Amino acid sequence: MTTNAGASRRAILKGGLIGAAALAGGATASRAGASESLITEIQDWNRYPGDGVDARPYGKPSEFEAHVVRKNVPWLTSDAISSVNFTPLHELDGIITPSGLCFERHHAGIAEIEPANHRLMIHGLVERPLVFTMADLKRFPRENKVYFLECAANTGMEWRGAQLNGCQFTHGMIHCLMYTGVRLKHLLDEAGVKTEGKWLLAEGADASGMTRSIPLDKALDDCMVAFGMNGEALRPEQGYPIRLVVPGWEGNMWVKWLRRLEIGDQPWQHREETSKYTDLMANGKARRFTFEMDVKSVITNPSPQAPILHGRGPLVLSGLAWSGKGRISRVDVSMDGGRNWTTARLDGPSLPKALHRFYHEFDWDGSDLFLQSRAIDEHGFVQPTKDQLRSVRGANSIYHNNGIQTWHVNSDGVIENVEVS
Amino acid sequence: MTTNAGASRRAILKGGLIGAAALAGGATASRAGASESLITEIQDWNRYPGDGVDARPYGKPSEFEAHVVRKNVPWLTSDAISSVNFTPLHELDGIITPSGLCFERHHAGIAEIEPANHRLMIHGLVERPLVFTMADLKRFPRENKVYFLECAANTGMEWRGAQLNGCQFTHGMIHCLMYTGVRLKHLLDEAGVKTEGKWLLAEGADASGMTRSIPLDKALDDCMVAFGMNGEALRPEQGYPIRLVVPGWEGNMWVKWLRRLEIGDQPWQHREETSKYTDLMANGKARRFTFEMDVKSVITNPSPQAPILHGRGPLVLSGLAWSGKGRISRVDVSMDGGRNWTTARLDGPSLPKALHRFYHEFDWDGSDLFLQSRAIDEHGFVQPTKDQLRSVRGANSIYHNNGIQTWHVNSDGVIENVEVS
Repeated sequence: MTTNAGASRRAILKGGLIGAAALAGGATASRAGASESLITEIQDWNRYPGDGVDARPYGKPSEFEAHVVRKNVPWLTSDAISSVNFTPLHELDGIITPSGLCFERHHAGIAEIEPANHRLMIHGLVERPLVFTMADLKRFPRENKVYFLECAANTGMEWRGAQLNGCQFTHGMIHCLMYTGVRLKHLLDEAGVKTEGKWLLAEGADASGMTRSIPLDKALDDCMVAFGMNGEALRPEQGYPIRLVVPGWEGNMWVKWLRRLEIGDQPWQHREETSKYTDLMANGKARRFTFEMDVKSVITNPSPQAPILHGRGPLVLSGLAWSGKGRISRVDVSMDGGRNWTTARLDGPSLPKALHRFYHEFDWDGSDLFLQSRAIDEHGFVQPTKDQLRSVRGANSIYHNNGIQTWHVNSDGVIENVEVS
Repeated sequence: MTTNAGASRRAILKGGLIGAAALAGGATASRAGASESLITEIQDWNRYPGDGVDARPYGKPSEFEAHVVRKNVPWLTSDAISSVNFTPLHELDGIITPSGLCFERHHAGIAEIEPANHRLMIHGLVERPLVFTMADLKRFPRENKVYFLECAANTGMEWRGAQLNGCQFTHGMIHCLMYTGVRLKHLLDEAGVKTEGKWLLAEGADASGMTRSIPLDKALDDCMVAFGMNGEALRPEQGYPIRLVVPGWEGNMWVKWLRRLEIGDQPWQHREETSKYTDLMANGKARRFTFEMDVKSVITNPSPQAPILHGRGPLVLSGLAWSGKGRISRVDVSMDGGRNWTTARLDGPSLPKALHRFYHEFDWDGSDLFLQSRAIDEHGFVQPTKDQLRSVRGANSIYHNNGIQTWHVNSDGVIENVEVS
């Protein structure tokens, strides 16, 4: 059968040569390319069978996608085990981040935990201190939710002006996954939180033993203890076998390799909520407990790492928008650095505290562009300009930069990170 | 900082020993296990830092998840290059299938296509035959949609009775992904379908040159030419760089490595719609063009490959439901082989022509169970019993078996594929 099909396809492709040749003139004004001789060439993949169904028990991307990877910035930290890498947003589409490409932030590298030897302890101001195995956790009612996770420091290096040339580095400390897990409320109910319990301390089981204080109201609202992401077990670099999910709040609180939850009557004032993850204001005082991630967006294509290669004519502009408060209701895009705005098209499922994908299709005439996007959430919060942000917060901040990003496109389609006033 | 944190954590864990020991009696009635000495042991992952952020440009699952893989059945076909493997449904949760675990069905193995040398041709009854490069396709408006893909032969080996011991093998020719691509209508509009055009032939670029005829109405409705899945490029075994997406219809029509679309005035009567993918009825005549996948469900946990290991008490039953006609409105579960039914809890986003996840939590008393699930879609279609299906379709069929599946659970929690009348 293969032989016959091959022969008939070659005949068809000869027909294709004529068809394609005939259209060469007519297609110049369309998005389809002119006639291509390649359609008539028999490629290796037409000629020889490939790997069978026994070859790849767990699949991986095509070798032609080898450039689509997380990247770290070696000069940023003194050691890669307490550092960050970045999601290649300019290579992705839709709202789900592929599990292998989610940015990583570790304080002592990736803990490689054997789930049979992992436990979650709940203690402190509870009626019944409890220790859960992984099997125990899987006997509680589960839920599946899509949430973005953004590091509070995302875009932080841009606070004093345009610096990094690509949305992977300016905005790539974010990902969005479908989590499977147990609502934290179920576990806390099992332990019985005492009335004086107002805060929860979450601790990781990696070698850094990272901790964060979380208000009990949030813990009882929508927090999850997740063991699954995108249908399968959490990946090691995302906290396997369990992580805390704190929807809409800064990523540092989503403690990975979750080992211990303690109930107390006040926050613990640990390192990650005092010396770090606070916002130093112009007057020398610091904002603390700025948990929620603000409304924000970025154009992922075109962008510095994804220049316009096809010249003038139809172009698909695309990007991501999100808000820690809920859904995105609208995204506007500007071609002229914020003077004029057009409403973009939102596409894909619109889920609270998840990424939203937007598109704007237009004909590029080859002129310089200053591309911006501006997100508005369902509660009416509007993404500010960087100048508006600085006028309120001063020049000392690192965290919680949700300012509007600008990409300059020149007539060759080359793109740079710039700032406009 | 790492040293200090380690020291303070060891102190905390000594406290944990006391707390955990104190609770041993009180927890026996709860889902949390009794006190475990492991919580007090310092594991290697607490002691030593792990891999840094430069170690894994593209991540992979934990080594402790190495058993979660696609599997083929060697006796099923004479060669693995024209064969099938199966999604490990019993190891997954939520509604998104991990990209590396989607079942594969090839007719000549996995084509390894270099996208720069791939073309899509549209010809036949069109005003302007066109040839598209990958870059051309990415200049059309895109969309992101979650759809299930089910092979028409899924559950086909069960037609004559219970045979394969595990939902991976009985129901694992299905996956559900978020696709990114171009609505086929946009491409056909660019080519200009002539009024006499009524059918479309889709052809793959692999060495089998597989073809299927698709009614033009469906092609103009919700079909897509997809280049992305779960946020990244299609995987090679799923048709990289492009595949046809034919929502709700049998997987064989979702032509992978899509190379050619021809418009005609009637179906082509090719192999995959005559000798295969037809349903031989009891009277010797065959149903043809049975494109749409019917309403169906299966319990994935517990199931033969995922027995009950924790004994009596709280148990989470879970499964998947789907319909080629739209959304699932309800799933019922039975413990006694279909005599009594309880409505299960649907969880996660409910999207048309996508998988739906259901749960049912109950206390298992250790008695024998005959577990069944029955899905009902938004149009009122109800999943039939296997006997109801055979009474209409006879005993000769392979494709389109959407009958209710039964798992027998014995008092040890061991589970078998059985059939009840």
